Amino acid sequence: MDCGGTNMKLALVSAEGKIFTSQTIAINYNQDVKKSVQEMAEGVRSFLSENRIAKIKQIGVGIAGDVDSKNGVVRFSPNLNWTDVHFKEMLEAELKLNCFVQNDANCAAWGGYILDGKARTHNLICLTLGTGVGGGIILNDQLYEGVLGSAGELGHMSINYDGRVCKCGNIGCLESYLGAWGLILSAQELISKKRAPILSKLIKESSAKISPRLVKTAAVQGDPDCRRLWQQSGIVLGVALANLVNIFNPDLILLAGGVAKAGDLILKPALQEMRKRAFSTPAKHVQVKVSKLDQILGVAGAALLPLQFK
Amino acid sequence: MDCGGTNMKLALVSAEGKIFTSQTIAINYNQDVKKSVQEMAEGVRSFLSENRIAKIKQIGVGIAGDVDSKNGVVRFSPNLNWTDVHFKEMLEAELKLNCFVQNDANCAAWGGYILDGKARTHNLICLTLGTGVGGGIILNDQLYEGVLGSAGELGHMSINYDGRVCKCGNIGCLESYLGAWGLILSAQELISKKRAPILSKLIKESSAKISPRLVKTAAVQGDPDCRRLWQQSGIVLGVALANLVNIFNPDLILLAGGVAKAGDLILKPALQEMRKRAFSTPAKHVQVKVSKLDQILGVAGAALLPLQFK
Repeated sequence: MDCGGTNMKLALVSAEGKIFTSQTIAINYNQDVKKSVQEMAEGVRSFLSENRIAKIKQIGVGIAGDVDSKNGVVRFSPNLNWTDVHFKEMLEAELKLNCFVQNDANCAAWGGYILDGKARTHNLICLTLGTGVGGGIILNDQLYEGVLGSAGELGHMSINYDGRVCKCGNIGCLESYLGAWGLILSAQELISKKRAPILSKLIKESSAKISPRLVKTAAVQGDPDCRRLWQQSGIVLGVALANLVNIFNPDLILLAGGVAKAGDLILKPALQEMRKRAFSTPAKHVQVKVSKLDQILGVAGAALLPLQFK
Repeated sequence: MDCGGTNMKLALVSAEGKIFTSQTIAINYNQDVKKSVQEMAEGVRSFLSENRIAKIKQIGVGIAGDVDSKNGVVRFSPNLNWTDVHFKEMLEAELKLNCFVQNDANCAAWGGYILDGKARTHNLICLTLGTGVGGGIILNDQLYEGVLGSAGELGHMSINYDGRVCKCGNIGCLESYLGAWGLILSAQELISKKRAPILSKLIKESSAKISPRLVKTAAVQGDPDCRRLWQQSGIVLGVALANLVNIFNPDLILLAGGVAKAGDLILKPALQEMRKRAFSTPAKHVQVKVSKLDQILGVAGAALLPLQFK
């Protein structure tokens, strides 16, 4: 299960990470927590019966927020509006199955380690460039969680301590530039200055809201300001990559999420900037790639969480 | 052995980290590498005979620079002006003893883990605020070295990507603000603007060079610009601490080195800034302290390196 702010993705996954089928269903998180959990359990039961599955081994759940994975407690999830929810206990009572609960970006990193890393990677850093920027850290073939399970908040590493205010209260976080909301904010600033002509035209024509996809389309169609925005975003990403290379000396940095879909528009300046800034030994070694399994990393990683304890 | 740019510190250390005796001797690193290594080996032999020690178990060596600890190769040390030196092999041939070679800040972190952490700490980050800023990472009771042994370059995490140019080529590195050279640069900027009156007076009176100690003395004597400089350095340190807390969720962040000796002048604003910026769960848990064992962390950690493999 991969639980976002308005829905829940479900997938049937083999112990090797093969995804048999998946489905996304809406969940109302704006109600009593117990009712939300019942709705989620009901969703799981329907999914299993629709797929004629009589028995599964266990359930892994990824949730955006601060998760105490040892006890399966969601300490705080702004997306789900949950505080100190004993989720593992509640879900196990509903489903009579072993459940594992983990931060969603940690799940994505674990999924990437197993599916993208394919056992050739021992130290992997995952950055999910979604609405926000999440992070997950695999070190020496293990998910690194820190003392309380709060480690890996790579999106809230400040790379510009006097810069843009982030939603978390910190200043100059990676997320405030590279999250979809940060990118959209930058695009809105351009439009309010009567810049980004092609993007403005696209918005007027389709009455669409600004999205990373639309900013990409405008850049591809030649909008000079949108091209510059991706270039600048690439530089910020490159600064972050250099920091991660100097800190972790990893094998692989895996990028996922909507913003990473801009491809070379963001990746090319990012790699160039990383190589300029990082120490040469670890910079030469690291591989940086956009995961092709983007959509399923989180849910597959959640399902495969128990592999950690083998 | 702890090898700096002009000397070598030697210490006799028990398996529990007790330091029996230590000594610092000058080494000429500006000659053929083989001759330097012979000089170092001769220093070790004299040290042992002066202390009437007939037999030791092994030798651990900390060296500033990029070290391949698996093979005992110093890939690059700007301080010693060494490139690709097979140091372990050379030293073992001289001394007929098992030798372990490691980056000096990694040694300090390992020393801090054993001596300051005292087995209550499982995840420790060490920042050595010396001439440069070194870093060492202990995760789940192990020294984390990365794929090639280059991990832990925390002083070269950029926290101001458009800021001051660092000696490493990156921009806005922690080191460029918090290393002694960065602090001295800031103090020089003040003096060239006819600021920092007490510091200027101290320099004239004693014809001393600017040092973190002198900037501290001036601040303690009421120099408003030097007080502000420590305040600003504290904010930068706080930004770094918040990043480390969000990334690692550690038990303990240990500070060492000359700049950390400014004590509350830098620590108070640093802790305040860290609490403003970091996520609350890990920020409440972490302990930040200046090591009291400062001078011996590196050499003790080097001697205790073999404890890792128990």
